[in-house]
Amino acid sequence: MKVGFLGLGDMGSAMADNLRRAGHELSVYNRTRARAEALSGVRVAASAQEAAEGVEVLISMLADDVAVEQVLFGESGAIHGLAPGSVHAGMSTVSHALARRLAAEHAARGQRYVGAPVFGRPEAARAAKLWIVAAGPSDAMERCRPLFEAMGQGIETLGEDPVHAAVVKIAGNLLLAAAIEALGEAYALVRKHGVAPARFLEIVNGRLLRSPVYENYGRIIAAERFEPPGFRLRHGLKDARLALAAGEDAAVPLPIASLVRDHYLTAMALGWADLDWAALARVSATAAGIHGPPQSSIANPGTPR
Amino acid sequence: MKVGFLGLGDMGSAMADNLRRAGHELSVYNRTRARAEALSGVRVAASAQEAAEGVEVLISMLADDVAVEQVLFGESGAIHGLAPGSVHAGMSTVSHALARRLAAEHAARGQRYVGAPVFGRPEAARAAKLWIVAAGPSDAMERCRPLFEAMGQGIETLGEDPVHAAVVKIAGNLLLAAAIEALGEAYALVRKHGVAPARFLEIVNGRLLRSPVYENYGRIIAAERFEPPGFRLRHGLKDARLALAAGEDAAVPLPIASLVRDHYLTAMALGWADLDWAALARVSATAAGIHGPPQSSIANPGTPR
Amino acid sequence: MKVGFLGLGDMGSAMADNLRRAGHELSVYNRTRARAEALSGVRVAASAQEAAEGVEVLISMLADDVAVEQVLFGESGAIHGLAPGSVHAGMSTVSHALARRLAAEHAARGQRYVGAPVFGRPEAARAAKLWIVAAGPSDAMERCRPLFEAMGQGIETLGEDPVHAAVVKIAGNLLLAAAIEALGEAYALVRKHGVAPARFLEIVNGRLLRSPVYENYGRIIAAERFEPPGFRLRHGLKDARLALAAGEDAAVPLPIASLVRDHYLTAMALGWADLDWAALARVSATAAGIHGPPQSSIANPGTPR
Amino acid sequence: MKVGFLGLGDMGSAMADNLRRAGHELSVYNRTRARAEALSGVRVAASAQEAAEGVEVLISMLADDVAVEQVLFGESGAIHGLAPGSVHAGMSTVSHALARRLAAEHAARGQRYVGAPVFGRPEAARAAKLWIVAAGPSDAMERCRPLFEAMGQGIETLGEDPVHAAVVKIAGNLLLAAAIEALGEAYALVRKHGVAPARFLEIVNGRLLRSPVYENYGRIIAAERFEPPGFRLRHGLKDARLALAAGEDAAVPLPIASLVRDHYLTAMALGWADLDWAALARVSATAAGIHGPPQSSIANPGTPR
Repeated sequence: MKVGFLGLGDMGSAMADNLRRAGHELSVYNRTRARAEALSGVRVAASAQEAAEGVEVLISMLADDVAVEQVLFGESGAIHGLAPGSVHAGMSTVSHALARRLAAEHAARGQRYVGAPVFGRPEAARAAKLWIVAAGPSDAMERCRPLFEAMGQGIETLGEDPVHAAVVKIAGNLLLAAAIEALGEAYALVRKHGVAPARFLEIVNGRLLRSPVYENYGRIIAAERFEPPGFRLRHGLKDARLALAAGEDAAVPLPIASLVRDHYLTAMALGWADLDWAALARVSATAAGIHGPPQSSIANPGTPR
Repeated sequence: MKVGFLGLGDMGSAMADNLRRAGHELSVYNRTRARAEALSGVRVAASAQEAAEGVEVLISMLADDVAVEQVLFGESGAIHGLAPGSVHAGMSTVSHALARRLAAEHAARGQRYVGAPVFGRPEAARAAKLWIVAAGPSDAMERCRPLFEAMGQGIETLGEDPVHAAVVKIAGNLLLAAAIEALGEAYALVRKHGVAPARFLEIVNGRLLRSPVYENYGRIIAAERFEPPGFRLRHGLKDARLALAAGEDAAVPLPIASLVRDHYLTAMALGWADLDWAALARVSATAAGIHGPPQSSIANPGTPR
Repeated sequence: MKVGFLGLGDMGSAMADNLRRAGHELSVYNRTRARAEALSGVRVAASAQEAAEGVEVLISMLADDVAVEQVLFGESGAIHGLAPGSVHAGMSTVSHALARRLAAEHAARGQRYVGAPVFGRPEAARAAKLWIVAAGPSDAMERCRPLFEAMGQGIETLGEDPVHAAVVKIAGNLLLAAAIEALGEAYALVRKHGVAPARFLEIVNGRLLRSPVYENYGRIIAAERFEPPGFRLRHGLKDARLALAAGEDAAVPLPIASLVRDHYLTAMALGWADLDWAALARVSATAAGIHGPPQSSIANPGTPR
Repeated sequence: MKVGFLGLGDMGSAMADNLRRAGHELSVYNRTRARAEALSGVRVAASAQEAAEGVEVLISMLADDVAVEQVLFGESGAIHGLAPGSVHAGMSTVSHALARRLAAEHAARGQRYVGAPVFGRPEAARAAKLWIVAAGPSDAMERCRPLFEAMGQGIETLGEDPVHAAVVKIAGNLLLAAAIEALGEAYALVRKHGVAPARFLEIVNGRLLRSPVYENYGRIIAAERFEPPGFRLRHGLKDARLALAAGEDAAVPLPIASLVRDHYLTAMALGWADLDWAALARVSATAAGIHGPPQSSIANPGTPR
């Protein structure tokens, strides 16, 4: 299938590469052109408009709302190149408001918008193991299906309204951020009482929660291994903002999102914007006067049996 | 083994019954005597002191610190019946401060204290599927091992200091409460944007978090099935208080625990003290102007594939 | 002086009327034309552009950033009518970002922008008792001075950068909102312990804080007299949002603003958008299970001496 | 009048001295005896019991609940020396629960308890300018009146129940802590946007709030002048705890108290326990990456007119 692809960060590059391997014909655009040229077997377009010309499906995987608005609707933006009848699958995390606008703008041009944000970090993108949450007109989703299958391990559909996909992604990220925040607080608590966070994780996630997400973030936080980032803290802040905006629009207070946002801002003030978003947990450690990962000498003597 | 057992609520009754089935000789005490008499094959003691006389191991499974202090140290309390050389395994959730006091008081009498709080709800207690987190003198833990094995599916040991077991239990419960709170907020958000919470759970836990804990509480909350309680909200409030006290003692701020505590208080003010602690999530719904579980008519048309 | 005036809500109408009384020649514009026509002795312009034509100073007193952007920069917006050399005094509360944009846009057209937000409720506006916080080019401020003097009881200047005035107004409103929130919580606490809020206020503000602001809001809240609104709750929410945005831009966490925002959202969900913003305090009462103002029968017997 | 006086910290010493100057006959007790001996014209008792013997009124001004419990009910405690018919005026800030217990214990001995906490810092105590909030049996309050008049500038009575006085004091301190927290956040916000906190205070308190409390704390915080402490941060934490306990007992969530408590704990972790409690505001500065007071070079050029 002829596919346009906008946005070649860590996620986008891996996803585009999986589409190419599956035999699709890609025309790609990235604001920093070097990242586009690093990709083999694809045509590098000079503008988003050019990347969108003649494609059946246009995929966007851009950093935030501002980037989407600029690359879609700006000068030489993709919307000016996209033909009637084509489909735009927005796969990055966007605000519920932008999802609504995209649906309307595309519909007004005889095009269709599928909201299709993904769950998964860059390693999942490379391994084509993303989970894709899609909502939009059903025939448009059908057209995207082979593409989604080449990038992900599964597709969850949510009906006709792309806003629903945006909101599920936003609320899902809120659950993850809340888990990271809670791990950060719990670790600070056990550590100052003499228990090694890694041992705490073994017990509480190993026996009780049994979640690969807690396992992954729990280990990252215990080791304070925040570089290289899988997902940057500045983007975590952006996602908290999306949750708060979605909440505000529907009159839903979200105190955990507020708390997480405030902690992200401290992280920003301390210069951690480009660490992994799990560095959120370091704010709780800092607020308890803890600096640096636990020494092996504090390691708890207990061993699981 | 000759075992004394104090506290026969939903958890304690099930645990004591499993000990009896495993062939141990039990002498039990409960403040409400009827609950003790409902248990077959055990000797019902007239006082905690009497229940503690002549036992090798005394187990306590009481509601809170006040109950432990009264039943142990009060008039006709267990401490007055317990012989030197015996072991007390405290299996309920107590404050770090009480764990410290128990260790000291027993040591002063030539006895040993094992902190051995459990993770698991009443159905896990009945099925002998509890997870036991134990810390204390190693020979004392060895003596308790066959008892723990009769009540649980596994034992995690944490070294010599019973305070460590108390803190791990308290911090573990904080993670659970944070997850419930986050689910409550995320559900309110998706619901007011038109997505059914149950569908959200299918996607986010089914594909991403993959935790039996989120699954269990996620379903309870989606259906607002808060009765009968597996663990009462008033006890959830108590556990938040224990986390805050442990944090205060070590100068660790715990904003999620503070938030959860404030929401529990609203739940108390609204008369939900004896619902399941997952009713914490209903506070977020109420604060967003949502009342009652979602109608099937709101159910989201999307289906997983 | 020839003055254009945009925005004739409760505040704007009173301010414009005071300018007219002081002998200035007004050309006014309001989106709902009827409000403009209700004002005597002024010329009613058909558009913002027309209102701005030929004036020395243009004053805007509009509800929020969106209104300012539309009335200034939209079709037939004021910017298209304003001559080079003229001054725009923005007197409503706008975001720090919009203040920055206004300064730049006017400078690019040879005009000057003075940020001049006001402290005071409608009754203060009517009595020409506003406090005006002004920042901008000094000659532009000088030109505005006689106008400010006709509307306020005093002017505080903050240097050349209009953003500073915006931020002081935003941070000042945060202090007020925090005071209202704190009064709400303290009232809920004393009331459920049997003390009448009005008596509490007499002691704590009468003797200790001695602030007319606490006195005013303290009485409104004690009597739950939230109608008619002096300043609408929905605008209070907007101001909390401005504080959070200014904080986010400078990496300053503002947990009280977050808390207040979450409580405003509950107020919105409960249908209180058009009550006075002091109804924020009712959220704390509701969260404690309190409904309605205290009965005289609860009135505390103590009397001050 | 024959008066016993327990507790001679900065507050107690000043208050006792004012009683002596007014001609009362004092028998004083302090755990650290040297502080008692530093006071001239009083009898120094060897124990709290001895200090209470033969007095008409016993006054306590002790650090916290634990100190009151120990000095009153412990070995050689005051309760053992106090005669039937005498009055105990508790003037320090105690929990609502301890106020209730004191009322009951004294009543059981034919004595009467007056809760009479004070508002004011040590300089107010020295100048006999305290505000006293008193509740208790009316004849007992009458007996205390000349003493209160010698120590304060006014007395506010609250009826018969000493718990009411405790709660008003606790809720009053919550208002103060909220104001300090809000000032800290607002200062961080304006500072990072280039406005000097002292100038912000001039405008917002000088023109709007007009409260001597905001003036005092606003200046302390702007100058970061946290030593010597007028009221120690560790005691501010204790008062937040009292508010939370009173809230918990009546099912009143107090999110500002929770927030303030969490920030106090960070202050404790950073070693600020013995700074003035206004150092709470420094937590907000630190969380925004600000260290140290504003340099004069940042001072805002604007001047009030």
